[in-house]
Amino acid sequence: MSDDAWVIFTPSGKRGRVAKGTPVLAAARALGVDLDSVCGGRGICSKCQVAPGYGEFPKHGLHVGAEALSPVNAVEERYDRIRGLKPGRRLGCQACIQGDVVIDVPAESQVHRQVIRKSASERVMEMDPATRPLYVDVAEPSMHEPSGDFERLSAALQSQWQVKGLQADLAVLATLQTALRKGGWKVTAAVQEPGDGTAPRLLALYPGYREAPLYGLAIDLGSTTIAGHLVALDDGSVCASSGLMNPQIRFGEDLMSRVSYAMMNPGGAAEMTAAVRAAMAGLAATLTEEAGVEPEAVVEAVVVCNPVMHHLLLGLDPVELGQAPFALACGASLNLAAAEIGLAPLAPGARAYLLPLIAGHVGADCAAVALSEAPETRDDLSLIVDVGTNAEILLGNRSRVLACSSPTGPAFEGAQISSGQRAAPGAIERIEIDPVTKEPRFRIIGNAHWSDEPGFGTPTITGICGSGIIEAVAEMRIAGLLDASGLIGSADQVGSARCVPMGRTQEYVIHDAAPEGPRVTVTQGDIRAIQLAKSALYAGARLLMDEMGVDKVDRVVLAGAFGAHISPKHAMVLGMIPDVPLEAVTSAGNAAGTGARMALCSRAARRSIEAQVTRIVKIETAIEPRFQEHFVAANAIPHATAPFPELAKIVSLPDVSFNAGPTGEGGGRRRRRG
Amino acid sequence: MSDDAWVIFTPSGKRGRVAKGTPVLAAARALGVDLDSVCGGRGICSKCQVAPGYGEFPKHGLHVGAEALSPVNAVEERYDRIRGLKPGRRLGCQACIQGDVVIDVPAESQVHRQVIRKSASERVMEMDPATRPLYVDVAEPSMHEPSGDFERLSAALQSQWQVKGLQADLAVLATLQTALRKGGWKVTAAVQEPGDGTAPRLLALYPGYREAPLYGLAIDLGSTTIAGHLVALDDGSVCASSGLMNPQIRFGEDLMSRVSYAMMNPGGAAEMTAAVRAAMAGLAATLTEEAGVEPEAVVEAVVVCNPVMHHLLLGLDPVELGQAPFALACGASLNLAAAEIGLAPLAPGARAYLLPLIAGHVGADCAAVALSEAPETRDDLSLIVDVGTNAEILLGNRSRVLACSSPTGPAFEGAQISSGQRAAPGAIERIEIDPVTKEPRFRIIGNAHWSDEPGFGTPTITGICGSGIIEAVAEMRIAGLLDASGLIGSADQVGSARCVPMGRTQEYVIHDAAPEGPRVTVTQGDIRAIQLAKSALYAGARLLMDEMGVDKVDRVVLAGAFGAHISPKHAMVLGMIPDVPLEAVTSAGNAAGTGARMALCSRAARRSIEAQVTRIVKIETAIEPRFQEHFVAANAIPHATAPFPELAKIVSLPDVSFNAGPTGEGGGRRRRRG
Repeated sequence: MSDDAWVIFTPSGKRGRVAKGTPVLAAARALGVDLDSVCGGRGICSKCQVAPGYGEFPKHGLHVGAEALSPVNAVEERYDRIRGLKPGRRLGCQACIQGDVVIDVPAESQVHRQVIRKSASERVMEMDPATRPLYVDVAEPSMHEPSGDFERLSAALQSQWQVKGLQADLAVLATLQTALRKGGWKVTAAVQEPGDGTAPRLLALYPGYREAPLYGLAIDLGSTTIAGHLVALDDGSVCASSGLMNPQIRFGEDLMSRVSYAMMNPGGAAEMTAAVRAAMAGLAATLTEEAGVEPEAVVEAVVVCNPVMHHLLLGLDPVELGQAPFALACGASLNLAAAEIGLAPLAPGARAYLLPLIAGHVGADCAAVALSEAPETRDDLSLIVDVGTNAEILLGNRSRVLACSSPTGPAFEGAQISSGQRAAPGAIERIEIDPVTKEPRFRIIGNAHWSDEPGFGTPTITGICGSGIIEAVAEMRIAGLLDASGLIGSADQVGSARCVPMGRTQEYVIHDAAPEGPRVTVTQGDIRAIQLAKSALYAGARLLMDEMGVDKVDRVVLAGAFGAHISPKHAMVLGMIPDVPLEAVTSAGNAAGTGARMALCSRAARRSIEAQVTRIVKIETAIEPRFQEHFVAANAIPHATAPFPELAKIVSLPDVSFNAGPTGEGGGRRRRRG
Repeated sequence: MSDDAWVIFTPSGKRGRVAKGTPVLAAARALGVDLDSVCGGRGICSKCQVAPGYGEFPKHGLHVGAEALSPVNAVEERYDRIRGLKPGRRLGCQACIQGDVVIDVPAESQVHRQVIRKSASERVMEMDPATRPLYVDVAEPSMHEPSGDFERLSAALQSQWQVKGLQADLAVLATLQTALRKGGWKVTAAVQEPGDGTAPRLLALYPGYREAPLYGLAIDLGSTTIAGHLVALDDGSVCASSGLMNPQIRFGEDLMSRVSYAMMNPGGAAEMTAAVRAAMAGLAATLTEEAGVEPEAVVEAVVVCNPVMHHLLLGLDPVELGQAPFALACGASLNLAAAEIGLAPLAPGARAYLLPLIAGHVGADCAAVALSEAPETRDDLSLIVDVGTNAEILLGNRSRVLACSSPTGPAFEGAQISSGQRAAPGAIERIEIDPVTKEPRFRIIGNAHWSDEPGFGTPTITGICGSGIIEAVAEMRIAGLLDASGLIGSADQVGSARCVPMGRTQEYVIHDAAPEGPRVTVTQGDIRAIQLAKSALYAGARLLMDEMGVDKVDRVVLAGAFGAHISPKHAMVLGMIPDVPLEAVTSAGNAAGTGARMALCSRAARRSIEAQVTRIVKIETAIEPRFQEHFVAANAIPHATAPFPELAKIVSLPDVSFNAGPTGEGGGRRRRRG
């Protein structure tokens, strides 16, 4: 009888002969099979659960007998009794191979498990977090074998987990003594192995075996809003999400006014740095509280943002970004102590990873969208538009990817709109206008009914959010309340008392609860603000198409915090995006946030985007004369010159005109970067 | 005629053939000759000066003609006109090799020049600083080749200086934009290449070519005093030295009372951390101001200290050091951002290197003494005693080195002595007592004359310093004013009115200016304090000798801030140190401070002591019963049982006894670690 046995692991198919008596976990390691373990084979963590198969395996030419694995032992019985073990499961560190066997590693026992990303594309992502919990037995100090706690911990991590050359910040060193003694020299170490050539780092130390996962923060730091997710680093699940306004708004609504603030006010940049750091720290506190997670368990943060926010967050002077050649102080990805950017309280050694910037004003937010949407992996030509105060636009396919940033201003986020507000209960988010009666019906956030349905009730209507204003303007154009130049017709011209004069222009009344409640209208000024914003967006996209040498794209992806809520039809009526078949317009939700989560969960994703940013070609909108031309031509709704044949198939726009006076008031003005 | 030529460099003797037209600097680099350059061959820095030899060189079989180097060019002429070039010198980057030539590299043109250390041993040290100034031309930003300032600087350092994978702290990144633009994209970068396997780091960036050297701080952080030197990193010269009291004294005079303070007071450790960091920052400011050096030019600091000070400086809890097994939180050397330990303002990215601790209470100060004195390089057996509030004691030779720490208390530094004071003008530092008349004569700091000489004048005598009290007690013993048990005789017993009663004991009056001025006496309490201190010192040394299995040592080195001032004869009369021939006792001055300077100037020194500490065997005094025995026996002056034959050759101690009562009051008490 042979002293060794065949073992075949599924689904990997990895196989080999191992000595009888070898624990399954050890066999998996020897054969390079991805089988998780936090406790290092001590029967504590249960992460190494496997499902042995018995019987005939003709495919492998094996018969697996009941005695192929050692009998269930006391450790497994105890575990099953206390925590419960699924039928057919064994602990890989306890079950020993005694004969030929086929062993399945279920998805949840794989370190590098694949998870489905919650985005339109539903692509899978492989878990490969930089920081993992490692349970270790540390030698106790002895007067005769003197060495420091840290040195003994390092030695234990090296011998038990092959972690070489461990580093630790002072803040972590300061916690070592307590954790080691409290855990009786058994601790769970949060160790970051960045995989970028730098040394592994100890980020936190927990007494004893830590049952709960480690966590990370994915933060999308926008000019107007800061959104964050708290993510479990074992399976990538989102435990809490929250957002808040960027407090820098008080220094300037758009990025360029913040750069000006820094330029004009000594100490102004530092003031903005302090404000955004405090807000991010507050967001981190909100997220951990909401999820009931102790801050010390949060070991990593990933931040994506545009270059101005990037510089202000890091305490770098943003002034160079206010003028050509828009030189960045540094553009590469950064792996910093989270405390360096004021992100606390988290784990004492928590790290912050900032995605690389692309160039000029095309930032890490755009890089995150590129990471999430991966246009470079597709044959068809994708136009990806991340709608925010600044629009990040990507155009590309397998052969080439271009990017630009276009200053749309905050109108799409409901700012600078007379009845505008952020997306919150009470805000109008959908609207339809009857082309005959010119009467509106709408839906508000937090209410499942349309306003003309019985169930709507009498809620307070507070204003109109970003997606609502886009629909309102587009519906007004479809209903003939608005002409191609963007002028609102008078009550007489359009035949509706809902158009009322406001100075020398008109406004369209959607809802009027005066004097008790708010009056929600769309003013001529609102139309102009939306025209400016959509022209900037369209002009940016066209500039990339020029550079790519194409007249149309195969698909359009709308991204951004509220990108998911934009109605493709209305966006196309507005002329926000180039003409494509309606079904070719999809929403990617908050793709920048998704990219941030990917970078949080996967070192491979970090390496991938670090490489990809060097290949993405940035097109600078600010100095490109054609951008101006495209911008002016795009002022009309949907467009002054470009045909929109696909749009014409689904909607016909009335050919009205309300004024013979000067048109395109907004066209000649150049909006500042926002 | 050949296209290449022989070039021989002296003093290295390196030689080879190079293509004619090769600049001397390039030839030196190609042949691995140590020829300095900061500007990288641009004719700016003049660091690459060489002295070509002409004529016959029979040793090398060469004739060097006048045309062997290219003629002096415009760059050299300009340099000579403005800055002056010594006769016979050429700039290595300008002079090109045109024929066989012998080129001498003067010491000041070598990066790794050897400097004589200012210590008793006068050993040479090779300059090998971790941080060097590197002058670079950085590419300007361009809209079409977008990359960050930091990335372009990194690329320049890589191509012009082979610096790969440059890292920088945020604080340094924040200064980049200004320095690069102010210097017109020509800058001098202070780059640390730690040589410990970690990545090179940018510590500071100066606009244009920086003429002045970079600087470092060597800090000896003692329990009682903090001493610092400002050192030029090009030649190791000391530009300023200063010291101050350790402000932690208000929390406890000795280390154990500070540990107790931390144990009893929540936040107490943090309070002490803040105090010592503030003091060190103040010391740094004093040193730069004194030397007229801008703080931004200080790029490194080396700190040596005992383990309790180490932990308190780093913000680590020192409580474990208060009890066996005296476990360190971390003992290895550290290379930190200086700002992390509050050492500012220095260069924005200044680093602090902490020497490794040896073990338990044997700290980095002892490691620094070991580095400076290098007992492991000698055949004879050295006993090295670093006298401070805690004595660090090393015993060893080529085969083995032992170390211990012994809690002497602050008596040797003049503290806990009734008339004690720190070494400052007005303090008695030398004293002689006439064995017949029992009259004293003395010298005070700041006065070249003895008190019985006409030139002495009528200075104010303020007290007695550490070396003074040692001499006073020893002289009292020689003069028969003190018996072997340490009792001061009465006026009747000794026949001198200078012995006056003080309660039930006697005091000896050295100087009495009352009522106008101070009265300087040695009290019975002072004698007891000195007996405790010297017994601890001697017992520590004996413990190491026991461990080594020897009864005598070949040489004794007295080190410590005031080690240089201790009279070997008096130290031996006191029984501070084991009996050796007087000429075998030398002083090493502040060896810990010297070790700190060595580590500041030389990466090789850092690697050497990091390796050496793992070989030094620590002997723990606190739990060793023999330490108690040695301590008790050493209470007598010079010793209760050990013969002092060498001492007997130079001085005979009167056999007096002033009391038949209980002796050795101090012997039974165990002093706390100080």
